[in-house]
Amino acid sequence: MEQLKPSPANSTPLTPLVFLERAATVYGDSPSIIYNNITYTWSDTHHRCLQLASSLSSIGISRGHVVSVVSPNVPALYELHFAVPFAAAVLNTINTRLDARTVSLLLQHCQSKLVFVDFHSRALVREAVSLFPPDLKPPPLVLISDDDDAAVSSQSHHPNISDDQFFSTYESLVAKGDPEFEWIRPRTEWDPIVLNYTSGTTMSPKGVVHCHRGIFIVAVNTLSDWSVPTQPVYLWTLPMFHSNGWCFPWAMAAFDASIIFDLIRRHGVTHMCGAPVVLNMLSNYRDPDKKPLKLAKPVHLVTAGAPPPAAVLLRTESLGFKVSHGYGLTETGGIVVSCAWKRNWNLLPAAEKAKLKARQGVKTTALTEVDVLDPKSGVSAKRDGSTLGEIVLRGGCIMLGYLKDPIGTRKCMTDDGWFYTGDVGVMHSDGYLEIKDRSKDVIISGGENLSSVEVESVLYSNPAVNEAAVVARPDEFWGETPCAFVSLKEGSKSKPTEKEMIEYCRGRLPHYMVPKTVVFMDELPKTSTGKIQKFVLREIAENMGSSSSPLSRSLTSRM
Amino acid sequence: MEQLKPSPANSTPLTPLVFLERAATVYGDSPSIIYNNITYTWSDTHHRCLQLASSLSSIGISRGHVVSVVSPNVPALYELHFAVPFAAAVLNTINTRLDARTVSLLLQHCQSKLVFVDFHSRALVREAVSLFPPDLKPPPLVLISDDDDAAVSSQSHHPNISDDQFFSTYESLVAKGDPEFEWIRPRTEWDPIVLNYTSGTTMSPKGVVHCHRGIFIVAVNTLSDWSVPTQPVYLWTLPMFHSNGWCFPWAMAAFDASIIFDLIRRHGVTHMCGAPVVLNMLSNYRDPDKKPLKLAKPVHLVTAGAPPPAAVLLRTESLGFKVSHGYGLTETGGIVVSCAWKRNWNLLPAAEKAKLKARQGVKTTALTEVDVLDPKSGVSAKRDGSTLGEIVLRGGCIMLGYLKDPIGTRKCMTDDGWFYTGDVGVMHSDGYLEIKDRSKDVIISGGENLSSVEVESVLYSNPAVNEAAVVARPDEFWGETPCAFVSLKEGSKSKPTEKEMIEYCRGRLPHYMVPKTVVFMDELPKTSTGKIQKFVLREIAENMGSSSSPLSRSLTSRM
Repeated sequence: MEQLKPSPANSTPLTPLVFLERAATVYGDSPSIIYNNITYTWSDTHHRCLQLASSLSSIGISRGHVVSVVSPNVPALYELHFAVPFAAAVLNTINTRLDARTVSLLLQHCQSKLVFVDFHSRALVREAVSLFPPDLKPPPLVLISDDDDAAVSSQSHHPNISDDQFFSTYESLVAKGDPEFEWIRPRTEWDPIVLNYTSGTTMSPKGVVHCHRGIFIVAVNTLSDWSVPTQPVYLWTLPMFHSNGWCFPWAMAAFDASIIFDLIRRHGVTHMCGAPVVLNMLSNYRDPDKKPLKLAKPVHLVTAGAPPPAAVLLRTESLGFKVSHGYGLTETGGIVVSCAWKRNWNLLPAAEKAKLKARQGVKTTALTEVDVLDPKSGVSAKRDGSTLGEIVLRGGCIMLGYLKDPIGTRKCMTDDGWFYTGDVGVMHSDGYLEIKDRSKDVIISGGENLSSVEVESVLYSNPAVNEAAVVARPDEFWGETPCAFVSLKEGSKSKPTEKEMIEYCRGRLPHYMVPKTVVFMDELPKTSTGKIQKFVLREIAENMGSSSSPLSRSLTSRM
Repeated sequence: MEQLKPSPANSTPLTPLVFLERAATVYGDSPSIIYNNITYTWSDTHHRCLQLASSLSSIGISRGHVVSVVSPNVPALYELHFAVPFAAAVLNTINTRLDARTVSLLLQHCQSKLVFVDFHSRALVREAVSLFPPDLKPPPLVLISDDDDAAVSSQSHHPNISDDQFFSTYESLVAKGDPEFEWIRPRTEWDPIVLNYTSGTTMSPKGVVHCHRGIFIVAVNTLSDWSVPTQPVYLWTLPMFHSNGWCFPWAMAAFDASIIFDLIRRHGVTHMCGAPVVLNMLSNYRDPDKKPLKLAKPVHLVTAGAPPPAAVLLRTESLGFKVSHGYGLTETGGIVVSCAWKRNWNLLPAAEKAKLKARQGVKTTALTEVDVLDPKSGVSAKRDGSTLGEIVLRGGCIMLGYLKDPIGTRKCMTDDGWFYTGDVGVMHSDGYLEIKDRSKDVIISGGENLSSVEVESVLYSNPAVNEAAVVARPDEFWGETPCAFVSLKEGSKSKPTEKEMIEYCRGRLPHYMVPKTVVFMDELPKTSTGKIQKFVLREIAENMGSSSSPLSRSLTSRM
């Protein structure tokens, strides 16, 4: 039996790129992308991606080169996900909300060979390029026009590029390419396919590199884990390629509930994704008659990116969304832990159901193992739903590593074969994982570790609360105490005071977990992916001084 | 970017074995197997498999050892699919309908270390073992009692094994094992997991070896390609591990339509599989009032194993089955080409739909490529739906090779990276594959290649026909002519004559494809997996002599 080894017929690299060919064969005439006035079919998309790949090859992009994109969710961004790896290059998407200095540093860090720039990000990228050191040649730029321009320019071959910093436009590269281009297959399935910078909520972005195999595994896993039927109608409210990367903002649509509800109605949307912040916004939306909107047909919605408060899940489902909850990181390429639903849970009261659904869940087929490790002993934490430990993962979905950061890579991918997520969680007795915090967000009060997420869940259950975040505030006696930052719902009748909020928590939490301070804000500071920036709040809390100090009171009114 | 290599966290071997852990976590209390009076939950199954694996390890079964099973679809057979590889051994299932000589040769060929034997196959295996050469020690045997015995014996630890050739019983091995056994993970994902002998319709069985990676890919692919929801109710009418291996017969259930309809009703079956022969039987079934049965709720049915005649598909769907059609071989581990359905096909007339569904379809995610090659030039055949060529495949689903048969392996897995299926097909202009024949079943008449499957499709469209098979008959003038073997439906009013059948074909086929001979039989000879044994029919046809000879007539009555 030992003589039987992998051979060319069975060891072709796993890659998600072959999916597009199949879609073009089976659903060639069906819509692939609907965007404003543009509708492409899968056959169009297949040809356009091959054309673009052919142009990229002909201008010298080759194996392993990094091609960057600074663009929101426009059709070009979708096409680049196939076109760039079709040319054997590595796709690097950059958040449009970053400042020019950071964009410049990222482009330098990954030695980008070419940058596609959306019309609206021209100034940003121009400035980023101007910040290159004089001895470093910046990459050439390609302009992505907005959709109306594209519709026109694809006919006229738009020879007039007004801006001479752009050596070409997206549509002209597509038009010049060969739709019969033989795409360049990866040499091995471990060849890189994407590079995603992740900032998390800190200020040190890391370049996460994924290979063809990893993305294949996550893609197939997502389809089977979510039981996606053939020909779903998917609404892109989520940045295109990652469930939790920092890629770029939750776009216009994601921050305007009325637009989302309108798109669902007009296009018969069946599937969409959204972070808890999107769920919160959908569930708090009121139509012009001040009533919550009800969906005519159920929409399947996957949420991830932060632990969703049970109260928010409950409200969202009551509108007709079928929410699936999962967990993943930029480093895992997508959602790889999911809250698989048990049929008998349907018999429970709604609040109980929401609590179960707020747990992150169990491993999917993309993972071999998931566990919670005691940080001191390194062995599995007790499966009691309360012993905190670090969440660790193992499986084909884990990134190759961080670009040019062997120390960072080795720190989270150690020789024991685990990927250390830096997230703190508990394992319940039934084998379901629940995240309690980012390790740096854990508050240590009087020697007790307490989960900020748990306190936030209680705050979210207050009907007047719109958003809540809890961080550590230094305390002379306790070391740290929980400090809550809260924004209230617009138009909410009750305006609870700090004292009332503390009272509210006291009835629902052990004493040591009750916030000692509550700060009201109009809106909490967020990253461009919609995550609350706890490091900003932490800084505020630290500047407040000790919880016992009288100084703290004055800040409440300063917000 | 080149420094980023696979590491322990992301290169854990892909294996389907982890699915059982997950099922036990999520669906621990839900039924895994219902068989007569036994109902196991996923938690039971998980524990029983670990216990059995622990016992196997403790009696010396270790990495790479072959463990054989001779058993129909009983719960033990399902459990062995996990328990044997949990002990790092290779599962080898053997068809219960084989003769003792063949079973003996297979056990010798794979050097089986242990054989599990179903109660009803005791005599067969005892004889097989007695045929071992005197200098070769036969493997020890373990008895699988039938379910009632098992229910009793699992309580009493059944110390009394009446038959001293069996050193233990299945249930005692389970009972002795440790449910906390740490299962032995594969060293690499290319480690073998199953060995399946495939006879096809010829007499030279080959040992197909699949690795963990291949079976993982096919399993995940099946779930996503078939859009299997969570918690389906699956009816095991198909031999357990292979869609088209020779494993063992379509069991009792598969040959009794009334039992299938009864099980569907009683257990709320949502999914099942069946070869076209099963579809034919279901659609021809009449209840005691002589009416065809209609399903109360749709049942998803995957069919494969032979090209299904469009007429049979049509009749099956009219009963309420939702038929998906696919193509795979023992060598691909499961169905890896499937007839993905286009929405606009729903608007076509039923007969047209059935014709489209009779095509094998397009590659699934388990395959990288599928093509039809011109046998002479070796390049892709014209995509015109009529140019015949050999079907070739490439992808992670392809077997490692044939056990101890490097020449056979090299013959079908050549250096050009294709797996040659030996099946003859056409590629339609829309990219859909259609099988026309096994290469050895193609009939060459007057220099024209003609597909026996196409002639059979026309015969099946005749309402009086139950089964039909067409083979080559030698002819002095034409070289070969099509010779049809037909069985008629029981109780069919019309009993067409040979002349009438030929007339029927003449109205529907080009002249050279019309059978020159039609032989009526009560039942066509079949392999134990339900495939019609064309080699038997070919032998009969050859013994008839030339189609022009008057001898042929006399045989018709001899059948």
